[in-house]
Amino acid sequence: MSVHDLETPCVVIDLDRLDRNLLRMQARCDGLGLKFRPHVTTHKIPEIARLQMDAGAVGIAAQKVSEAAVFADAGFNDVLIPYNIVNPRKTARLADLALFNRITVAADHPVVIAGLADAAKANEMSLRVILELATELERTGALPDEVVELAKRIDADENLHFVGLLVYPSTPASRPALQEALNLLHNAGIGVDMVSGGGTGAVRFAPEIPELTELRAGTYIFNDWKAVCKSWADMDDCALMVAATIVSRPTTERAILDCGSRSLSSETVDGGYGFILEYPDAYIYTLSGEHAHVDVSKCREQPVIGERVHVIPVRADMVINLHDTVYALRDWQLENQWSVAARGMVW
Amino acid sequence: MSVHDLETPCVVIDLDRLDRNLLRMQARCDGLGLKFRPHVTTHKIPEIARLQMDAGAVGIAAQKVSEAAVFADAGFNDVLIPYNIVNPRKTARLADLALFNRITVAADHPVVIAGLADAAKANEMSLRVILELATELERTGALPDEVVELAKRIDADENLHFVGLLVYPSTPASRPALQEALNLLHNAGIGVDMVSGGGTGAVRFAPEIPELTELRAGTYIFNDWKAVCKSWADMDDCALMVAATIVSRPTTERAILDCGSRSLSSETVDGGYGFILEYPDAYIYTLSGEHAHVDVSKCREQPVIGERVHVIPVRADMVINLHDTVYALRDWQLENQWSVAARGMVW
Repeated sequence: MSVHDLETPCVVIDLDRLDRNLLRMQARCDGLGLKFRPHVTTHKIPEIARLQMDAGAVGIAAQKVSEAAVFADAGFNDVLIPYNIVNPRKTARLADLALFNRITVAADHPVVIAGLADAAKANEMSLRVILELATELERTGALPDEVVELAKRIDADENLHFVGLLVYPSTPASRPALQEALNLLHNAGIGVDMVSGGGTGAVRFAPEIPELTELRAGTYIFNDWKAVCKSWADMDDCALMVAATIVSRPTTERAILDCGSRSLSSETVDGGYGFILEYPDAYIYTLSGEHAHVDVSKCREQPVIGERVHVIPVRADMVINLHDTVYALRDWQLENQWSVAARGMVW
Repeated sequence: MSVHDLETPCVVIDLDRLDRNLLRMQARCDGLGLKFRPHVTTHKIPEIARLQMDAGAVGIAAQKVSEAAVFADAGFNDVLIPYNIVNPRKTARLADLALFNRITVAADHPVVIAGLADAAKANEMSLRVILELATELERTGALPDEVVELAKRIDADENLHFVGLLVYPSTPASRPALQEALNLLHNAGIGVDMVSGGGTGAVRFAPEIPELTELRAGTYIFNDWKAVCKSWADMDDCALMVAATIVSRPTTERAILDCGSRSLSSETVDGGYGFILEYPDAYIYTLSGEHAHVDVSKCREQPVIGERVHVIPVRADMVINLHDTVYALRDWQLENQWSVAARGMVW
């Protein structure tokens, strides 16, 4: 079955590119002596996680408890959740999951630690906790001078075990805080087993941050138009595309595709909403829910109604989360069809 | 069961507000002598479409064939698809659907009409076709001087039936083209049964466009932060919210919610990503996949980790399409739980 037999819009994955992306990342980490832990939130597909593990990954990272549960059920038993899990019902689920799996969970505040401790105690088990350190991203994370106090709190609790530090992204800008925190922990006599860095765009900096023991990355498996625009990847590295059809040609300048923000997401980079493989001079300048509005005025060939094209989306991870199924291709022939098992698992 | 017992992030719907929105829109159309046809792409939930029909709607509008099929299966048999359906497999599905349902489908080009004719002929049945007219939106649609030729093509085909004209949005700016097209059709002796206008933001202009015979609207059922910012609705009209939890307080200025672009979508209006009901002075200034980054520096009360809040999203329709289930509340108590049956139905 050819890609041209699939209904559009749909998500297609070039398996040769996917294989190349995953082997290259694993080889890079192996070369640096770093453990590699793919972030499965990007793809949400156990079959892809299996390929990543087979290539040499030590475990996976999942962003939420519900997502971790899908992967644990599928046999992925070493899961890092780089996210503060709060609320008694949610920490109870986490503790349940940790009874049968090696779960490591992040924390950045005494209240978060206290919630984890309560859940672990109720389950009469031990939870592995990694402290998240704030970075230039200015999202979550503690400051270096809070780390010793937080680590002591964790280790003082009989049901919690302090394992180390986590940063996102692991860039040269985030290194001074990481070094400071590690020094403070060392001076306090607190052991650190794990220093986890991350980010597809930050992987190239790993040689400059020897403190890291492992790397997390997600986007690298597909790459996307944003990764290309930010020079994290080349066009030929983009493994995920949205197959689409030209459904209207209202003017000589404008073509309309049947993939809108419900297929491509509303993500934009440099003002564009994706790159059309067959029309590199075309420009997707806006999206409706079910339409892509394309400026084709600079194209030498003009697309016609009914013609099929392939769009490299701005963010592959956002696209995956909109679709229930993806189609895995080799040489544009259907080789496999995968359910996006963890789609919508946001809690 | 209270809203506070639901896992976050999740979508909750205030039924009193939803009821008010739907009755008000139907009453407005009744008052103008216009048929009303709710656009179900906004909610994708047959139970809500049932409420809309019970209030007096004449049928529904669905944007894609797969979505129309979900609603036809659920018993909604008068469906307008205001979208060019191209590709032989897709027009065949459309024709199948039209065997047992009253389907009206849009077209804006001879190629689209030819595809519909082929499918209708193969099924030995008749398809109702409505011509879409271009508007200031500059998306799909034919020009007024193309309409007579297109209508003749439709009626010349023994399997197609020309029913009228469709515009989106139906604003005063789109009226001159509509009048011109209607005049040309009249002069050519071509009858027009249906003139369908649409858009929640355009409903207020309906009295100024007496050519309309029916109105389509979708967003009105929930409203959202974009509708409020554009003065289409008041805050009290917003029936859909995302329940979320404060999961981090890294600084006194910043709070982090557990709903990111995978729960709220990446839609933005006036630079913001949603409105927090409990903290009207807070500002969601960016989203990660699973985090909302909130500036709380202007808030009198400071949110704490574990606290629950409710976010009015920028676009309710984009949020619905990310979630499998929504929770219907009255006075913040759970009254119903609905599956988003047509979620992901983009082809």
